[in-house]
Amino acid sequence: MDPDAVAKAFVEHYYSTFDANRAGLANLYQEGSMLTFEGQKIMGSQNIVAKLTSLPFQQCQHQISTVDCQPSGPAGGMLVFVSGNLQLVGEQHALKFSQMFHLMPTPQGSFYVLNDIFRLNYA
Amino acid sequence: MDPDAVAKAFVEHYYSTFDANRAGLANLYQEGSMLTFEGQKIMGSQNIVAKLTSLPFQQCQHQISTVDCQPSGPAGGMLVFVSGNLQLVGEQHALKFSQMFHLMPTPQGSFYVLNDIFRLNYA
Repeated sequence: MDPDAVAKAFVEHYYSTFDANRAGLANLYQEGSMLTFEGQKIMGSQNIVAKLTSLPFQQCQHQISTVDCQPSGPAGGMLVFVSGNLQLVGEQHALKFSQMFHLMPTPQGSFYVLNDIFRLNYA
Repeated sequence: MDPDAVAKAFVEHYYSTFDANRAGLANLYQEGSMLTFEGQKIMGSQNIVAKLTSLPFQQCQHQISTVDCQPSGPAGGMLVFVSGNLQLVGEQHALKFSQMFHLMPTPQGSFYVLNDIFRLNYA
């Protein structure tokens, strides 16, 4: 399958899960996964999902602007770089964000998130 | 050495070289390196530097806002995520950008850029 298509499918799956049921993201991370959220480092699927579900907003909607993708080396991983808008319910203006994922293949032929770095783009 | 300190030192070196002598960036890439610049994929040190030196501005200055860093897996690589401003000489407003680097160790104990993805953050 075309890597760009895989990246795009992953990104759509990730953000639609985030927007509908954040706790469901647990399946996309593993124990060795790391998230850096606005500079804060969090290790492991359980802690990452605890962070994401405790963010100070309930409903949100991600809108994707760009998705770039590159193979990350011989281990079959993939780097995915996303820019987009995050609309919080009740807020007038969307927040711009940039996020990168390092996806690694699973034995089942799918991918999990090994690395995840998220930053809001402050104006 | 602390990975965050290595990442910060790399970022300072990269952008000061970019701003002073773009052709000097050739040493930081190798044949297997890949750059995605505003969606355009470019392979190999020579092509990457040809792209960077042919950008439609001469003098510029990068100002770094944030640097995030994570280990990228067992091969000793490092992911570096940067946000900042790019000031072009003669332009009134700086351009905001986000960029990620995947650094891999060299036998000499240094790092080279395996993956590089650059995006301007459009307002």
